[in-house]
Amino acid sequence: MRQLTLRLAATAAVLSSLAVIPAHAADLAPTAQRVAAQALADRTAWTVLESLTTEVGPRPVGSPAMTQARDWGVATLKGLGFQNVHVEPFTTPVWSRGAESAEVVAPYPQKLHILGLGRSAPTPPGGLTAPIVVFRSYQEMLDQPVGALKGKIAVVTQAMRKTEDGSGYGAINAQRTQGPVEAAKRGAVAYLLRSLSTDDNREPHAGAAQPGGIPAAALSPVDAEQLERMAARGKPVSVHLDLQSSFNPQAQAWNVVGELPGREHPDQVLVVGGHLDSWDPGTGAIDDGAGVAIATAAAKLAAGPNPPGRTIRVVMWGSEEQTGSGAAYAAAHKDEVGKIVVVGESDLGADQVWSVSLPKGSFAAPAMTAFRSVLPGLKVIASRAAPREGGSDIEGLMALGAPFVDFNQDATRYFDLHHSADDTLDKVKPENLAQNVAVWAAFLYTVANSDIDFRQPAQEAASK
Amino acid sequence: MRQLTLRLAATAAVLSSLAVIPAHAADLAPTAQRVAAQALADRTAWTVLESLTTEVGPRPVGSPAMTQARDWGVATLKGLGFQNVHVEPFTTPVWSRGAESAEVVAPYPQKLHILGLGRSAPTPPGGLTAPIVVFRSYQEMLDQPVGALKGKIAVVTQAMRKTEDGSGYGAINAQRTQGPVEAAKRGAVAYLLRSLSTDDNREPHAGAAQPGGIPAAALSPVDAEQLERMAARGKPVSVHLDLQSSFNPQAQAWNVVGELPGREHPDQVLVVGGHLDSWDPGTGAIDDGAGVAIATAAAKLAAGPNPPGRTIRVVMWGSEEQTGSGAAYAAAHKDEVGKIVVVGESDLGADQVWSVSLPKGSFAAPAMTAFRSVLPGLKVIASRAAPREGGSDIEGLMALGAPFVDFNQDATRYFDLHHSADDTLDKVKPENLAQNVAVWAAFLYTVANSDIDFRQPAQEAASK
Repeated sequence: MRQLTLRLAATAAVLSSLAVIPAHAADLAPTAQRVAAQALADRTAWTVLESLTTEVGPRPVGSPAMTQARDWGVATLKGLGFQNVHVEPFTTPVWSRGAESAEVVAPYPQKLHILGLGRSAPTPPGGLTAPIVVFRSYQEMLDQPVGALKGKIAVVTQAMRKTEDGSGYGAINAQRTQGPVEAAKRGAVAYLLRSLSTDDNREPHAGAAQPGGIPAAALSPVDAEQLERMAARGKPVSVHLDLQSSFNPQAQAWNVVGELPGREHPDQVLVVGGHLDSWDPGTGAIDDGAGVAIATAAAKLAAGPNPPGRTIRVVMWGSEEQTGSGAAYAAAHKDEVGKIVVVGESDLGADQVWSVSLPKGSFAAPAMTAFRSVLPGLKVIASRAAPREGGSDIEGLMALGAPFVDFNQDATRYFDLHHSADDTLDKVKPENLAQNVAVWAAFLYTVANSDIDFRQPAQEAASK
Repeated sequence: MRQLTLRLAATAAVLSSLAVIPAHAADLAPTAQRVAAQALADRTAWTVLESLTTEVGPRPVGSPAMTQARDWGVATLKGLGFQNVHVEPFTTPVWSRGAESAEVVAPYPQKLHILGLGRSAPTPPGGLTAPIVVFRSYQEMLDQPVGALKGKIAVVTQAMRKTEDGSGYGAINAQRTQGPVEAAKRGAVAYLLRSLSTDDNREPHAGAAQPGGIPAAALSPVDAEQLERMAARGKPVSVHLDLQSSFNPQAQAWNVVGELPGREHPDQVLVVGGHLDSWDPGTGAIDDGAGVAIATAAAKLAAGPNPPGRTIRVVMWGSEEQTGSGAAYAAAHKDEVGKIVVVGESDLGADQVWSVSLPKGSFAAPAMTAFRSVLPGLKVIASRAAPREGGSDIEGLMALGAPFVDFNQDATRYFDLHHSADDTLDKVKPENLAQNVAVWAAFLYTVANSDIDFRQPAQEAASK
């Protein structure tokens, strides 16, 4: 940790070349552009991300590594000069992976590459063996009547479409989240799905399911296709599945928080962050070490050497993958929602932002016009559409009425890596990570140093 | 197996549309072109490869699956109408993988993705723990004096270059084959290398090492880079390695053989094949199910509905990965080397042939001119250089003087997959597989139906 602190101190020294904060919104654009340019050349986010993924690695909620990640978060924020650095504890249900294996036992004995689904039930000790029924679409399984899958392992092999906007995931993820419960309703003893993956390698992709289902696991895309081929040969195919796991209904977890207090309006707060927990197969580089690193570096760059006008708060949410941290944060902060100027979460990896959606009605406000002036140089589209979703950790605050932004990242590669052993630092391109930081830093800068009120966008636009 | 036989019979029916064999070498070109065109539309190779990889799957020498593969080979050749189908048994030393695991225990506890190297020693039961020393090139480790690595785990992280001709492999594979012995000389207790992989995913790539070394394993490229980063942070890094394996100095193995006997010269034999054994992580689709499928389909297509002039013999070699099958074959057939017209092995995957090297001096011979007439349509370069290597299973026959060919395949993707869990059927493009069959079928056709003698190429060329 000491090495990180030293490197971050060196980075902070560079930041002192930033201009002082302008007094008026009209002066924001040139400095916003300088903040963005500085961000493109800055290594803070990379340093933070390398440190987290190397020194802590995989950090599922409830694990000893997540406790290390908490300490890492505190030390990182302190090392970068954040104030009021603290942890906000909460409890949340936690599923933990145990020993897992799967294999075809007849007629073509072969091992299968799988990962058990979060919240799914364990098999009996020693596992279970049953014939499989393969459905090439999730709907085909849903079309089965109650009881039709009695004693069977239901296998859904529908493949996920790769898309730039990530919509392929939403279109299919009921196959993972609802599949085990739906298969159970139809009598199945276990459930296997083709991973929600857009890659074609042998890595299965983890993820959570709704509680209440049968033992369930994700197959690598390769293994899903192998089961399709085996089933197509006409003989009954029998699979042995051993999924051990444990469940703690009240595990300890934490959100880690640090602030750069506002000079003029310390009680007006911009909340930005990513989630610190990860699934266990990879090192959580793109999901969501990148978001943590982007938010942290962007906050630091937006503030520069002097305090910002408003407070910028970074939150490293501590239980996104199995849910809990967003709800805990909203519950703890419901009384200060009126003070939250805007909230945002970076949680779609480390590839470039390609489009930003600003809070409803704020597009033409002077502060947002200043922010938008950085976008052409970063090849980002300024969408006139209001944001629809902002990240699962901020949904609680959003529901309480906090204004939010949505910075859309290129998701083309994201689901090649997401929740798999391939979610590792080497997949992150430093220049793309820096582009994210530039967008966030410029946004935080213009909002923190103006009096824009996203709750009253029309008045704001009209009054200037 | 019955299904395969039925499908193969349907394929064979299509072949009856081929023309009868011409009497003279001058007539060979048009029919060679028709054989190649037929091959491009033929599904025999795909059907064979799908059957092997689905029904047998991984088949390391010495395993029960390899016994199944032997039976599969016999049934497949008989199903396709080969005659004199038989197995040629031999014994060979066999290393078999047991339970394996590796993890960083301090200062950054994380699991590592590894595969033990064939022929490497096992660790003591329960494994060993030792500090690592990272070398970014193999030469750096070789530069260490005797005793310098005492008590350490030597880690070599040099990366393999991706090349079309596959030369990146030869340039670096001493890192795997010799590394364990060289590390042992310098006092190391174990050896880890960055896999000989050109991919960047989390899959380690298996492979054999020279006997006599310490416990040794291949890291995934991702894990090799993670160890580099950990080591660069300055604190001692300690790894626990548990590699269990067993060794049988005289395991049973088999070469599987089938023939399409010659009509005019049954005692003149073309020997062509691939190897039936595979490493265990994948299903041996590109290494070397593809070679088995290509050779088998090409022989069948080259013969067509009528017997060829000379005998075409397909050999499915049974122990290439740990060596043994080529030597056993040469020893068993040393007395018939004079009858072997030409020998060839397909063992570089399923991507296209981009260049062929014909037996020395035969380039301008009429039969080879006829063969070369098919190459422009297949986008294949006819090299004037004599072949240098033909495949490890035919080295024994080559050493005894048998003429050989070398059909160079595009190896750009090969080492992404080779010896890893990603060596699976879905990585094979049917059109590329068919292009290989077309090249081999046209070659076998022109050689089997001419009197070309590769031992006397000059006379052949002069006499026509």
